[in-house]
Amino acid sequence: MSVPEQFTGYAAFDAENWADLRLHKFTPKPFDAYDIDIKVDYCGICGSDLHVLRSGWSPTIYPVVPGHEVTGKVVRVGPKVTSIKAGDYVGVGAQAWSCGGCDACAGEEVGEKHSSWGPEGEHGHGGKGGLKGGKENYCKEVVETYNWRYKDGSLAYGGYADYVRIHENFVYPIPEGIAPEIAAPMLCAGVTMYSPLARSGLKPGAKVGIVGLGGLGHFGVLFAKQVFNFDVTVISHSARKKEDALKMGASDFWVTSEENWTEKRTRTLDMIISTNFSTDMPLKHYLSLLKIGGTLVVCGIPEGKLPALEWADIATSNLAIRGSNVGSKVEVEEMLKAVAEKDVKSWVNIMPMSDVKTAIQKMENGEASYRFVLKADFE
Amino acid sequence: MSVPEQFTGYAAFDAENWADLRLHKFTPKPFDAYDIDIKVDYCGICGSDLHVLRSGWSPTIYPVVPGHEVTGKVVRVGPKVTSIKAGDYVGVGAQAWSCGGCDACAGEEVGEKHSSWGPEGEHGHGGKGGLKGGKENYCKEVVETYNWRYKDGSLAYGGYADYVRIHENFVYPIPEGIAPEIAAPMLCAGVTMYSPLARSGLKPGAKVGIVGLGGLGHFGVLFAKQVFNFDVTVISHSARKKEDALKMGASDFWVTSEENWTEKRTRTLDMIISTNFSTDMPLKHYLSLLKIGGTLVVCGIPEGKLPALEWADIATSNLAIRGSNVGSKVEVEEMLKAVAEKDVKSWVNIMPMSDVKTAIQKMENGEASYRFVLKADFE
Repeated sequence: MSVPEQFTGYAAFDAENWADLRLHKFTPKPFDAYDIDIKVDYCGICGSDLHVLRSGWSPTIYPVVPGHEVTGKVVRVGPKVTSIKAGDYVGVGAQAWSCGGCDACAGEEVGEKHSSWGPEGEHGHGGKGGLKGGKENYCKEVVETYNWRYKDGSLAYGGYADYVRIHENFVYPIPEGIAPEIAAPMLCAGVTMYSPLARSGLKPGAKVGIVGLGGLGHFGVLFAKQVFNFDVTVISHSARKKEDALKMGASDFWVTSEENWTEKRTRTLDMIISTNFSTDMPLKHYLSLLKIGGTLVVCGIPEGKLPALEWADIATSNLAIRGSNVGSKVEVEEMLKAVAEKDVKSWVNIMPMSDVKTAIQKMENGEASYRFVLKADFE
Repeated sequence: MSVPEQFTGYAAFDAENWADLRLHKFTPKPFDAYDIDIKVDYCGICGSDLHVLRSGWSPTIYPVVPGHEVTGKVVRVGPKVTSIKAGDYVGVGAQAWSCGGCDACAGEEVGEKHSSWGPEGEHGHGGKGGLKGGKENYCKEVVETYNWRYKDGSLAYGGYADYVRIHENFVYPIPEGIAPEIAAPMLCAGVTMYSPLARSGLKPGAKVGIVGLGGLGHFGVLFAKQVFNFDVTVISHSARKKEDALKMGASDFWVTSEENWTEKRTRTLDMIISTNFSTDMPLKHYLSLLKIGGTLVVCGIPEGKLPALEWADIATSNLAIRGSNVGSKVEVEEMLKAVAEKDVKSWVNIMPMSDVKTAIQKMENGEASYRFVLKADFE
């Protein structure tokens, strides 16, 4: 299959008209020796897409083609690609590139840093690089899948498009048995929740709270229960989603708009993962629910600062607040393996990509239940 | 030795005249079956004493007799006391009582909660109680050594006094070989730093930053190096204490008032313990120094909120901020054992207790190097 010189996607052109996505032809990064072109089948709509579309976190590079929960078929591989071949079914998440040489990418034990750089890496996109460190999602030279610039100045474009082009390090084979529309939203939202659950060190039966039952939160419940066998409580501002939470595997549901909602629940949870991204979230109330030594992981990204805390909010129960940012390739692979084994199913609403504006509007209205996934329908 | 009905100590009488400590006769809590009376020899001046004297954290109960870094000889034990006898040399720290029945005190495995309560615990001070949980410093019914009320309404008074009266659970035998003036400041400041170091799970050679070289910080350096064999960096606002830091065992010293002081130091430390209690401390700069997955432990207690953070400050390196509050009896015992074995020496300035006002003033001026310890000189 021949890949066009230009790709076609749905783009926003400025912050004011952020929800008015229109067809846009763009030139992808130059095709590198380690690059892979993928014909997009599905792309999830992530909360991040909305933040970036409206320049919510920081000024966006317009026109922006969002989308970092992609599945599709490989149609072209660069001459140095070894891990993937044309025809493979693959996915792409929130990360498009990492340096391959730092501690995060290559591991602390690597003697020669940036040894993967050099002539093989044309266009300043770097060579194959190493991901032995297993933490390349924390590489400081990260390139995200869209709204980001490569070293040569070319722009990264996301999966609301007919094709995506990306370094093989950030292409994840999708195991047989996982439908592509089910896998797609796991590649950002899924692994964002999988990573802190997997790193928690908690044993089956541990009590885990998930704050917020949106796209992220629903994966929190599904994975916590079905992969890790934790005892899950959903914490939400209203009771509206209680039935869904219980179906997903939660054993309890706490409503934060009820008076004294933390009463008799203090010090009952081993860990909390918060997907709340409000700048006035009741962080200290969440913290009060944790057992001594517990940890609250912040996965929701506010458009502003987290609420300021007093020392006592964390110190009187020896608590920690930890930040977490998506997951590594190793974690994506682990997650997909577990998903295939346990037959975990994302809760998705499929819409044609040509209806992206409607889907975005519904997402903004909180009507996702629990992930809109766009099905590419380019001519 | 007969113990007087009333004890005599140095008290502040209101917030306005907080540094004007004067002799004060007071009635201690009623002597309980599990209580121990100690004739005070030494009492360290903790930073907490100053915060409480001036009602810095919250309104203080005046008159207040501060002091929770006490060593002295046991002169009387209650009929139910089993762990200590008259004539033993002991210490008292920041905690005077805990419930003995909650998860923190008795451990999660205990079936019958508060089983230690009952007729043996007269005056509502509780019975012997259990400390098997090993986290009684996080008991929610904690009574602190001073500026706190017991259940029966009687006030807790500290060690700027001739005697202290306290439940045996919170009396720590001082091992032979540790001088009482060396041991005293370890019972609050020492264990406050020992606890997070011991719980860190880090291996010898790990890189640990200590923010602030005051009473707390100097124990951070001493214990991190001499007990745990960590590689210690002191982080301070000026270079004034560099020489001392190196003598204590630090291998490096970073000055936060220097321009671009974090440059080339990002992601180099495994853990940081901050003793800074300023509400505008450069928390995000401290965090930038941590390796991926690292933890900053907050041991300084601001008179206000901690600085608000952005998600990125903790998430882009998977960092945690943890609160920690003094230490448990088990940790005090471990610490004292290690101190005896490794011959760790607190850096103290001894002053007669009758000069408490001068000592407090010097402490306030930052002239402690690194702990003022009052030697009781009552008639």
